[in-house]
Amino acid sequence: MTRALLTDFYQLTMLAAYHEQGMMDTAVFEFFVRKLPPHRNFFVAAGLESTLDFLARFAFTAEEIDWLAGLGKFKPAFLDWLGKLRFTGTVEAMPEGTPFFADEPILRVIAPLPEAQIVETRLINLLQFETLIASKAARVRLAAGDRQLVDFGLRRAHGEEAGMLSARASYLAGFDGTSNTLAGMRWNIPVFGTMAHSFVQAHATELAAFAAFARAHPQATTLLIDTYDTEAAAAALVPLAHELHAEGITIRAVRLDSGDLLAHARQVRAILDSGGLPGIKIFASGNLDEYEITRLLAAGAPIDGFGVGTRMNVSADQPYLDCAYKLQEYAGRPRRKRSEGKATWPGRKQVFRRFDAQGRMLGDVLTVVGDEQEGTPLLVPVMQDGKRLAPAPPLSELRAKTLAQLAALPETLRRTESAEPYPVVVAEPLRRLAATVDAYGH
Amino acid sequence: MTRALLTDFYQLTMLAAYHEQGMMDTAVFEFFVRKLPPHRNFFVAAGLESTLDFLARFAFTAEEIDWLAGLGKFKPAFLDWLGKLRFTGTVEAMPEGTPFFADEPILRVIAPLPEAQIVETRLINLLQFETLIASKAARVRLAAGDRQLVDFGLRRAHGEEAGMLSARASYLAGFDGTSNTLAGMRWNIPVFGTMAHSFVQAHATELAAFAAFARAHPQATTLLIDTYDTEAAAAALVPLAHELHAEGITIRAVRLDSGDLLAHARQVRAILDSGGLPGIKIFASGNLDEYEITRLLAAGAPIDGFGVGTRMNVSADQPYLDCAYKLQEYAGRPRRKRSEGKATWPGRKQVFRRFDAQGRMLGDVLTVVGDEQEGTPLLVPVMQDGKRLAPAPPLSELRAKTLAQLAALPETLRRTESAEPYPVVVAEPLRRLAATVDAYGH
Repeated sequence: MTRALLTDFYQLTMLAAYHEQGMMDTAVFEFFVRKLPPHRNFFVAAGLESTLDFLARFAFTAEEIDWLAGLGKFKPAFLDWLGKLRFTGTVEAMPEGTPFFADEPILRVIAPLPEAQIVETRLINLLQFETLIASKAARVRLAAGDRQLVDFGLRRAHGEEAGMLSARASYLAGFDGTSNTLAGMRWNIPVFGTMAHSFVQAHATELAAFAAFARAHPQATTLLIDTYDTEAAAAALVPLAHELHAEGITIRAVRLDSGDLLAHARQVRAILDSGGLPGIKIFASGNLDEYEITRLLAAGAPIDGFGVGTRMNVSADQPYLDCAYKLQEYAGRPRRKRSEGKATWPGRKQVFRRFDAQGRMLGDVLTVVGDEQEGTPLLVPVMQDGKRLAPAPPLSELRAKTLAQLAALPETLRRTESAEPYPVVVAEPLRRLAATVDAYGH
Repeated sequence: MTRALLTDFYQLTMLAAYHEQGMMDTAVFEFFVRKLPPHRNFFVAAGLESTLDFLARFAFTAEEIDWLAGLGKFKPAFLDWLGKLRFTGTVEAMPEGTPFFADEPILRVIAPLPEAQIVETRLINLLQFETLIASKAARVRLAAGDRQLVDFGLRRAHGEEAGMLSARASYLAGFDGTSNTLAGMRWNIPVFGTMAHSFVQAHATELAAFAAFARAHPQATTLLIDTYDTEAAAAALVPLAHELHAEGITIRAVRLDSGDLLAHARQVRAILDSGGLPGIKIFASGNLDEYEITRLLAAGAPIDGFGVGTRMNVSADQPYLDCAYKLQEYAGRPRRKRSEGKATWPGRKQVFRRFDAQGRMLGDVLTVVGDEQEGTPLLVPVMQDGKRLAPAPPLSELRAKTLAQLAALPETLRRTESAEPYPVVVAEPLRRLAATVDAYGH
């Protein structure tokens, strides 16, 4: 459970001022991403479930309030009030797994100003990261077609929660499983794993390591064959695999983790095939991402599955999103930030999405809430009076819906390289509102 | 506390095989980084304290063992043994804050093979990330000279632990504090924060927001002045600041968060100075990193402090390190991985560092343990029989030592751009050991 004190200190200094002034009217904040990073054609919304969980349980502990009191910066009446603060607001959002585009809000909070403000930091912290990874993982899934994809990134993820949430976000976006065992337990994600180089090194010979591992795991054995010399290991494996087969043990796959994966995969495939082992699959890992997988498959690499780690789990080519959680309305009046390069569309907004007869996405309209446009409205109510409107759907169900939506993306957007932007039209009522807010001066 | 199940599944499949074979001899693993990323001249070791905490408490819960049993992949005798597994090994390491270079181990684990293996994933997860951020933050500190530096990155850090550990790592590397309030509470790091744009937007006018905030926080008020028009806000602030001063309220600083920070800082400085307010400091934030701070200060920007967020907290130009935790010795015999591009130096290693008479670093020697070289040995014992040899030092003490070591770096290495590499000599005994291991075949 998230501590309420996991927040930027300015949220507390602002709340103290709001409390002093009695500014408790309804505020509307929206979370959106300002622009698509280079090479990206779409985002995939994620982080809603963890955000709702955070909002539903939001409360300061007595220990936290005591610590704040010890700073000597806050009045006792404010801290008393802060200790009782809960999130009682309304949330409207796109379901996890929904593709979206720049400037489209994926989540709206409607709550008394201090409540909507204090949750900002953690809300961005969750939505930004989970969306970042789901968006990256979806590209890897599209690049890999229907080949097996396993998240291998826990070790270089940025700490524990990053490892957990990226296992979840990559599964949501279509991966088949993860090496992160705790994520497997928490969200019922299939877990995968075989052996490290150290296992091979700890044995007297590579072949002894293979035999020992296969006998300890007679079902679905995958052997790592690149510790010393990949092709020599593949050749040595041929008689061993037949010997093990006679014992009833089947080698399912070999893993390549270094060097020129294309060349090694071709040579290993040839060695295994000519050794009468066409059923042994080739699984590759090591510095993979959507670009490298696209390159390998375009070259015809005989690779059946990929372990994708670091570059996906830290979204290495774009490790953050230019996102914001902005005040759009306070006390019934629309607001707009106009800082250079950071101006925002004011008011409460909705996104309508149109589809063709085959269910393929045609285009979106961004407009003000209340302006009915053709298509499906993407933001739906998910929380009221601080309570979820429905229990969290099973992750496997969200994953299936995500895959269906990735299939509905225009073909050009499904590619690894930049495409013509997806059409997002800003409707006239929203343009008028922005002009009105500007004329008014805020 | 870290769950033991926060690990790659292959650690468990390997342990099952080790258990079955009775491979419980002593293993030696070392953690190191393979190479310096572009533009980087040194690393700063971090993550030791969290790693020792993890090792000292390592244990599976009954719930975790039950869940593993439910997978149907492990034998009951193995799971019984796993449930009782604790970390009983020895750890030798560089203290947090030590500058280090490619191929130099910063931590060594000596323990029965299964213990040393099972901790791999979380150990890399902690050491990699904390070292990544401390190394980045040290560069920001060197670029900023003695100006105030505050970590602003919680919202775009990769989840909660990333936000917590990067607040700690940046403070370790010389930042003055953080906006992350929970990190302030946990590690006694100074917390900083003032107001967001939403605070200004929620008020009827910008000036009303400034006045309300200053009166709610009469000590050390910092006002954000870029919500609408930076220079107009600065000009409007002049009479208000004098008025507040008459009430006994001093405006400490203004913050700029968008646009051309150099131009705005100059204009705002001129407006405040000519308005008789030379004491109000200028604090800047928004897309800052060591490169941008170097550029601003080289241009003479009148900026007194910086809030550095996203680009530092995700180490945006290099969001991961090419690091490894490798088996160096098993059952008394040195081991070496020879995978293409990933070969390692075998055996237990020590780093000796030489300093000149002024305490400036001169060069390192990487050698085998037992080969005494001139200089200070950097790896020291920190854990024995699974117990820490000393309590964790206060973070402020580690920070002071880190700053002293950054001051001892050769001048060229302290710059933002690439310098001639720091001399790290591989001693003859280590070269001979590598040749021997290769000749032996492992």
